[in-house]
Amino acid sequence: MNEPEFIAALRALPLHPAARGLADDCAVLAIGGEVLVITHDMMAEGTHFRADADMADVAWKLVTSNLSDLASKGAEPVGVLLGHTLGRDDDRFIKGLEEALAAFGTPLLGGDTIAAAGARTLGLTAIGRATCTPVPSRGGAQPGDAVYLTGPVGRAMLGFEGHAAHSDAFHRPVPRLAEGQALAPYVTAMMDVSDGLLLDAFRMAEASGVTLALESEAIPVADPARIADCIRWGDDYELLFTLPPTAALPATAHRIGTVTARDSAPLLLGDTPLRDPASLGYRHG
Amino acid sequence: MNEPEFIAALRALPLHPAARGLADDCAVLAIGGEVLVITHDMMAEGTHFRADADMADVAWKLVTSNLSDLASKGAEPVGVLLGHTLGRDDDRFIKGLEEALAAFGTPLLGGDTIAAAGARTLGLTAIGRATCTPVPSRGGAQPGDAVYLTGPVGRAMLGFEGHAAHSDAFHRPVPRLAEGQALAPYVTAMMDVSDGLLLDAFRMAEASGVTLALESEAIPVADPARIADCIRWGDDYELLFTLPPTAALPATAHRIGTVTARDSAPLLLGDTPLRDPASLGYRHG
Repeated sequence: MNEPEFIAALRALPLHPAARGLADDCAVLAIGGEVLVITHDMMAEGTHFRADADMADVAWKLVTSNLSDLASKGAEPVGVLLGHTLGRDDDRFIKGLEEALAAFGTPLLGGDTIAAAGARTLGLTAIGRATCTPVPSRGGAQPGDAVYLTGPVGRAMLGFEGHAAHSDAFHRPVPRLAEGQALAPYVTAMMDVSDGLLLDAFRMAEASGVTLALESEAIPVADPARIADCIRWGDDYELLFTLPPTAALPATAHRIGTVTARDSAPLLLGDTPLRDPASLGYRHG
Repeated sequence: MNEPEFIAALRALPLHPAARGLADDCAVLAIGGEVLVITHDMMAEGTHFRADADMADVAWKLVTSNLSDLASKGAEPVGVLLGHTLGRDDDRFIKGLEEALAAFGTPLLGGDTIAAAGARTLGLTAIGRATCTPVPSRGGAQPGDAVYLTGPVGRAMLGFEGHAAHSDAFHRPVPRLAEGQALAPYVTAMMDVSDGLLLDAFRMAEASGVTLALESEAIPVADPARIADCIRWGDDYELLFTLPPTAALPATAHRIGTVTARDSAPLLLGDTPLRDPASLGYRHG
């Protein structure tokens, strides 16, 4: 099976209501008087990081990719469970994990450590506490809403390519936890942009049953000469959200478009309809 | 690093109080007036399952190994998050996952699906709700307590070796969820026997700072002629627990020994002191 086929098969299994139909970034679990936000993201050598990557950076990104999902729900981190496959430079992995957990105020809750042959796979489960309810989803964008992005895209791409000024954007990205918490009570939809702006905007449009009409010139990008790459590359971890047009903006963000009723395509970039998700972004297998 | 070194390094990181010092089977997280029990276990091809294993059995065992940790805390399952690496026979994996989730009344909460080269690694995060507090740990065994085991060990070994009568014990083991819930309010210590009776009893003795004196002839084993193997092989998922000697037994179990103040070794098998954990069981790397 490929990924869409496997996820479709998972959707046919008994799902917890908190799973949101496996159509969101996190599970949202009401428990006692609290609401927990729970996510699990994996990284595999060769797919998500190179065999010669600094394992400290890999650990940091494993934490960020999970906490960014919590940020998109306005959740504050409670802790993480690590699923670790032993291998090269485990001391560097520990160092980067320590730095990330300290930077984001997130303690370790537990996990599992194994030995295995071949390419390494790492997993992290992040548990957060919702700071407001209802917890935002991808699926609430309304016609007339404005579309916003918390910061420029394409920085991770430039960092990956070796531009020193953007090195941290690729190697040490920061989840937008504070922004997510500030925005959550007001947004109609929110998600993080981990797989590229166009692809993630397409997903928000699909989940919401609307069209996101983006204005190219309004999208903040790290290199305007390469806007087409910047809006397709992933790993930037900015937040994409929609807000009623009259609402005050509770965090710094750039207005990049407008939500309309479903047009000829889920996504419009200027006048160009975009229908094929395969052309939109950077997809891990 | 090897596994003990890596875990020692993790213990030096900021730990959540719920992590119980990474010395227990699960995190125990008080939240919203409830207590959640959270665990994450991984399985890797070549280490935890063979490259030609029926992936339906692998999925079932992935669920069981995690729910068995919940059972050892007396928790009832809330749901699981799956970390899946795509590969051979994913349809069989889905089938086994469906059967296990149905058998144990546990819905899917979420997770992640990736593609990666090489041997596959699978992870599961199980979340349960404590049915009593305080939640049992490995570390509460008291001198004078009786030591119990919920059922025979060695069945999974025989199943692995091809004995048809014990096939299910290896391929479709069942977590002792009902027993764990019945026992949790009364035990002084409890854990599941996933890595072999002797090794896990050694760990309980170490965590409790006591000696577990086991009587060979009292230990229920699947094949008495091979008791030495039966008490070292893992994957049986019975519960090992201690109870004050005067307490009524709230679930069917076999008394296999007595807790004493720390003797010359953490573990006594009859008159034989056992000090070296490397000799005691079946250790995954």
